[in-house]
Amino acid sequence: MLSLAELQRRIEDGALSADAAIAQSMEAIDAQENTIGAFVRRADAPRAQNAGPLRGIAVGVKDIIDTADMPTEMGSVIYKGWQPRADAAVVIALKAAGATVAGKTTTTGFASMDPTATRNPRNPGHTPGGSSSGSAAAVAAGMIPLALGTQTGGSVIRPASFCGVAAIKPSFGLLPMVGIKCYSWTLDTLGLFAAGVQDLAHGLSAITGRAELLSANAAGSPRIGVVTQDFAGAPESAGEEALRIAASAAERAGAQVRKLALPEIVAEAWRAHPTLQEFEAHRALAWEYRVHHEAMPPLLRAKLDETKDLQPAAWDAARRTTNRARKALAAVFDEVDILLTFSAPGAAPKGLASTGDPRFNRLWTLVGAPCVNVPATVVEGGLPVGVQVIARFGDDAGALAAGRFLEAALANS
Amino acid sequence: MLSLAELQRRIEDGALSADAAIAQSMEAIDAQENTIGAFVRRADAPRAQNAGPLRGIAVGVKDIIDTADMPTEMGSVIYKGWQPRADAAVVIALKAAGATVAGKTTTTGFASMDPTATRNPRNPGHTPGGSSSGSAAAVAAGMIPLALGTQTGGSVIRPASFCGVAAIKPSFGLLPMVGIKCYSWTLDTLGLFAAGVQDLAHGLSAITGRAELLSANAAGSPRIGVVTQDFAGAPESAGEEALRIAASAAERAGAQVRKLALPEIVAEAWRAHPTLQEFEAHRALAWEYRVHHEAMPPLLRAKLDETKDLQPAAWDAARRTTNRARKALAAVFDEVDILLTFSAPGAAPKGLASTGDPRFNRLWTLVGAPCVNVPATVVEGGLPVGVQVIARFGDDAGALAAGRFLEAALANS
Repeated sequence: MLSLAELQRRIEDGALSADAAIAQSMEAIDAQENTIGAFVRRADAPRAQNAGPLRGIAVGVKDIIDTADMPTEMGSVIYKGWQPRADAAVVIALKAAGATVAGKTTTTGFASMDPTATRNPRNPGHTPGGSSSGSAAAVAAGMIPLALGTQTGGSVIRPASFCGVAAIKPSFGLLPMVGIKCYSWTLDTLGLFAAGVQDLAHGLSAITGRAELLSANAAGSPRIGVVTQDFAGAPESAGEEALRIAASAAERAGAQVRKLALPEIVAEAWRAHPTLQEFEAHRALAWEYRVHHEAMPPLLRAKLDETKDLQPAAWDAARRTTNRARKALAAVFDEVDILLTFSAPGAAPKGLASTGDPRFNRLWTLVGAPCVNVPATVVEGGLPVGVQVIARFGDDAGALAAGRFLEAALANS
Repeated sequence: MLSLAELQRRIEDGALSADAAIAQSMEAIDAQENTIGAFVRRADAPRAQNAGPLRGIAVGVKDIIDTADMPTEMGSVIYKGWQPRADAAVVIALKAAGATVAGKTTTTGFASMDPTATRNPRNPGHTPGGSSSGSAAAVAAGMIPLALGTQTGGSVIRPASFCGVAAIKPSFGLLPMVGIKCYSWTLDTLGLFAAGVQDLAHGLSAITGRAELLSANAAGSPRIGVVTQDFAGAPESAGEEALRIAASAAERAGAQVRKLALPEIVAEAWRAHPTLQEFEAHRALAWEYRVHHEAMPPLLRAKLDETKDLQPAAWDAARRTTNRARKALAAVFDEVDILLTFSAPGAAPKGLASTGDPRFNRLWTLVGAPCVNVPATVVEGGLPVGVQVIARFGDDAGALAAGRFLEAALANS
């Protein structure tokens, strides 16, 4: 994989020109794209910028994120060839930080469940996960050092786990959602994929102008609460093993690690997530569903057909439950610095028919807490399995610092 | 003015066909548009629908709200002729409820401060207010029974006050913002304009599918707290008079009315509003500001130039202050049912150079509470002045019920 921080260092030192760094990424894309299928469209002769912390960094942009100079097709024939007027806020922020857009990466239709043809670079017989399929796969394949995804259920953390890359879903609101196709305005959250946690920190800091994301001093011995989210069902043995390995490594590295039960209201919020998500999707995608019903991605259409009788009162109740769960979780974070849990039930499922299950992710999207995927182990078939590091809402620096701590602990164990 | 509820009754009774109701609105637009200038574009041969509570209702849609069959120009040359792919969520909801879009109404550039050429139907030498200028003016002129606006500072309640129409800015999140040009994602809120408060209730209930908005039983004697928002400066004498008249009328009609001081944290939140607004505008309008700087509306560009050094830490602090103010206001609503305050400093300013001052509105946009404008008096020059009825966050039914109570009290006094 390409380390963003390492590329930055080499460009800064003059060992690598920004142009050569971009060219290297475009060559890697050309070499592997036929096998992986991570891109909907590649930029036409992209060039490096002269300044900015991300100069020379080629970025993949999930194809539900508007770009002024490339179509944005939402993974759906309904938007075939659709050319937005403006760049999404996050795209222009990337450009302002010096980055170069390498191309648009594949997305499941409207970032829901209908899979793309993208293959997992670790094992092409398996899904890379979704909905940010192309972004996760492109970073894992070493095509690009940074990619943008979005998560409404588990669409950043899960594909990162399946592809063996680092990823962050920051606190809700940290990155602006302007110019991104909406599925659920309460849940949709931008995220980043990169080779390692430090690379994520460099990328997120450059996009947001928040120096504190870089300078976060990893607490020597973070208090870690391991949560198994029993309300979400049991993991597979690979998921269980990844969590055990990560918890042991953290403990050996000096962290205080203990199992933690979450308050009952949190389980209730987990059950409320689909209500919020689908009620809002019926509004966010109302034009597509009403005017282009037959052309809708079939799994998404079936989900919307199933949930079309959701009433406002159910949404109101789900929002109240969510608010109570957020308060309860804030109290949990008075006792521990970090929560550690599964990034996915197990390794990437076989075949491309399903992008996997977001059941261990959706609670954390709902409460808006920052989550980092750290690859923890590799199981049969060369398939990676990650774990999810979660910090208090707003403490993105803490989530990144703990992610780095765990990454180092795993490397040393 | 055209009463939406009255039109619905006549259509329901068969006294008026839905087609005739639409034709009547289009004729009224044709007759007055040259004088008022409320529309950017009129629908091409619009037709009534056969079913739905809003059949026969012609609606004006502010031109920052996407429409799939009409350009959406944002009040800016940067979007000249721009044709979105999809209808905004609220537009498709209107259509699903049976309404017909009559046309796109004028907006200040990107719903900021640069005025349109729209005139105040009550006195063409005065501004109709902004940023939802065309929607307020079109309802006031009797062209249409319902119009959509948006408010980030005071862009719904203030023009309603200046034009002498009823308006509601519902609780934040009640109406979906998907497909609407963003200025500030924390603040932007859709609102409705109509002839009277009952008309607003019928419109909002039909769009949201919330029957409780119609059936709200107006508390016989609401407890009303009159607030003067001294932190926002003094009103003009016309504003002061409108509030005095409204408070007296409510008291005579049986309400318990008393003056109320707001907690200091609320004043602090009022001061934080511009930080939130402009920090987010720098992100939401980053493509326009960076790529089309010279073509930006000049007052907006100057505001963005002025505020371009706003730092993330200032935004973080503004958000924390806002959260504290929301909690403090929730406690205020344990003591009173309704707050009553100015809708604007006074009547509509003379000329078209300024759309007026949102200083008495922005706090309520910030805290997300539902606000209803009720016309209270008419001053020199035939200019109306309204007052603002505010309920607890989420109690839109209560805000509408109190608005009807006050409207009746004023009619009887």
